[in-house]
Amino acid sequence: MPDFAIGVDLGGTNLRIAAVDANGKVMEKITTSTEVSRGRDQVIFEMCNTIQEVLVKFRGSGHIAGIGIGIPGIIDMQTGMLHESPNLPGWQDYPVKQEIERRLGTTVVLENDANSAALGEKWIGAGESVDDLCMITLGTGVGGGIVTGGEIWHGMTGMAGEMGHVTVEPDGVPCGCGGRGCVEQYASATAIKRMAVEAIAKGSAPELARAMREEPELSAKVVYQMALQGDEPAQKIFRTVGRALGIVIGSAVNIFNLPMYVIGGGVASAWDSFAPSMLEEVRVRSFVYRATMPHESVPGVQGTNVHDDVLPTRRSTIITRALLGSDAGLIGAARLPMTSGERAASDLRL
Amino acid sequence: MPDFAIGVDLGGTNLRIAAVDANGKVMEKITTSTEVSRGRDQVIFEMCNTIQEVLVKFRGSGHIAGIGIGIPGIIDMQTGMLHESPNLPGWQDYPVKQEIERRLGTTVVLENDANSAALGEKWIGAGESVDDLCMITLGTGVGGGIVTGGEIWHGMTGMAGEMGHVTVEPDGVPCGCGGRGCVEQYASATAIKRMAVEAIAKGSAPELARAMREEPELSAKVVYQMALQGDEPAQKIFRTVGRALGIVIGSAVNIFNLPMYVIGGGVASAWDSFAPSMLEEVRVRSFVYRATMPHESVPGVQGTNVHDDVLPTRRSTIITRALLGSDAGLIGAARLPMTSGERAASDLRL
Repeated sequence: MPDFAIGVDLGGTNLRIAAVDANGKVMEKITTSTEVSRGRDQVIFEMCNTIQEVLVKFRGSGHIAGIGIGIPGIIDMQTGMLHESPNLPGWQDYPVKQEIERRLGTTVVLENDANSAALGEKWIGAGESVDDLCMITLGTGVGGGIVTGGEIWHGMTGMAGEMGHVTVEPDGVPCGCGGRGCVEQYASATAIKRMAVEAIAKGSAPELARAMREEPELSAKVVYQMALQGDEPAQKIFRTVGRALGIVIGSAVNIFNLPMYVIGGGVASAWDSFAPSMLEEVRVRSFVYRATMPHESVPGVQGTNVHDDVLPTRRSTIITRALLGSDAGLIGAARLPMTSGERAASDLRL
Repeated sequence: MPDFAIGVDLGGTNLRIAAVDANGKVMEKITTSTEVSRGRDQVIFEMCNTIQEVLVKFRGSGHIAGIGIGIPGIIDMQTGMLHESPNLPGWQDYPVKQEIERRLGTTVVLENDANSAALGEKWIGAGESVDDLCMITLGTGVGGGIVTGGEIWHGMTGMAGEMGHVTVEPDGVPCGCGGRGCVEQYASATAIKRMAVEAIAKGSAPELARAMREEPELSAKVVYQMALQGDEPAQKIFRTVGRALGIVIGSAVNIFNLPMYVIGGGVASAWDSFAPSMLEEVRVRSFVYRATMPHESVPGVQGTNVHDDVLPTRRSTIITRALLGSDAGLIGAARLPMTSGERAASDLRL
């Protein structure tokens, strides 16, 4: 019977809990809505109950490596406190880790959700073949995670990897973080929607305006569909997304010289609409990228970037889509106790 | 008798060679001019001769850890070739490491000069008390180096740490790297001079114009002196330097969450003129910085950033000046064989 771990992806909307085996296979997945409005104690109570249920179900199914939990927000790894979490209002300065451990009677590994997703992609996703990668997650906001030597790079206090708050326009759109012109303001689903509304207000996007009359809660998905149908104002928005991402990735390549940069999150589904401008921007801005572009032309072999006739070499910089979709964070969370020093196997009370 | 190593700092203008003991003490330092115009073979011939002289002199003075050489430009660590080196014209795609080793009859450790400087500052400079730091070197260009766990972070091919080519103005001044608006275009000595000439041309800097009439080769140093004397246009230039650095460091703090960011190189002498705008920019743009600002107020204790009444804690983000001046690269180069797997002690032919 295989060893397994419990992975938890606690989002602002959904709470997902899975039993994942040592090969990354999801043995069971439970999805419920996160009832944030009922308060943090209630959310944690229900989460811990579901974790217990899954543990009981798989009791005897193998060695339990532990419990990993990905949550949105900035976690102070030394204290287990949430510093900031726009998606979990009222959780700031709440001893999340301690509370969960008290209720479960065992230690857990707490991690930022974008870091968990990066670890998941490294484990069994896009980054399976590399040791180091930087992942940028495009959702409501823009998150990020850096994996080096197969492990999450935490920095001094666990706050590393905040790729969403790299400046791309110094005098640009004010950001919730206090800065201006962060990539989050140009490449998140929220930003896509905002740019569409701005274009409509300027009167320069008649088709988008029509779509908004039909569906006032204009979504990034609708803007993408318009772009696919050839609507120029919608396509322009995704070129802006690509440019902002290209600026960040170009700088990141010059700074890190990592073998792989992975784009994940819901907005990554619109890859075709933003990847060309993104890759062109990286090419122009990063001589390190140009010096490490995939160059071996092997007909018939599909590369992982847009150059389909190119086989990435061991020394190539790969910029690619995530492979695990919305499961990346969940799978990465389950991976946490398998790699962490904080394994909780021995003291799990089932 | 102490162990020692040979450090070499091969610049476009000066060639400096030192014997450095295991505590970082410079036992002997030889400075000559780099006669770039006589060709790379001649430069390497003279460098190797001087290295041999120093080795012979210190023969019997202790165990020789090896020879480390810092050179300007992008080095492919796997091949020992120079990819780009504006300061060493004609050295591109030249097997530098191999040539030096052939002449010396021993292995050497080759490293980018800004990486060497970062290692030097980590060893016995500003970063002595931390394991991880990011250094930005402000000279003719802007270089950088990242040290993690006490060692240089090389990335996939040894090109990591190119902090000078992080974008700060996406549509800004074209950069020699092919990009636009790199921090090098706003915070290098070359950029300071260019901004002064631009201000003069606009007629908005009468005092700088006067200085330039006296000394047509207006230097960054003269601009700094004017700023010190209260000249507003000169002060504005250094605020631009500070802003550009603050944008880069703010992003770097959000990405890395390192304990220390060190500013070195000749322009760092003008710290007082750019540090206030730099630190303010970092504070605004980085919530990670705000969450890790030095906060313990201990009267009489000098902090290492501008908040002189603040004692940095173990969890503080320190942004500070380099301490080793122009010796950082030389000392760091000597440190290379002491920490590298490529030590050459056993096969040194004296």
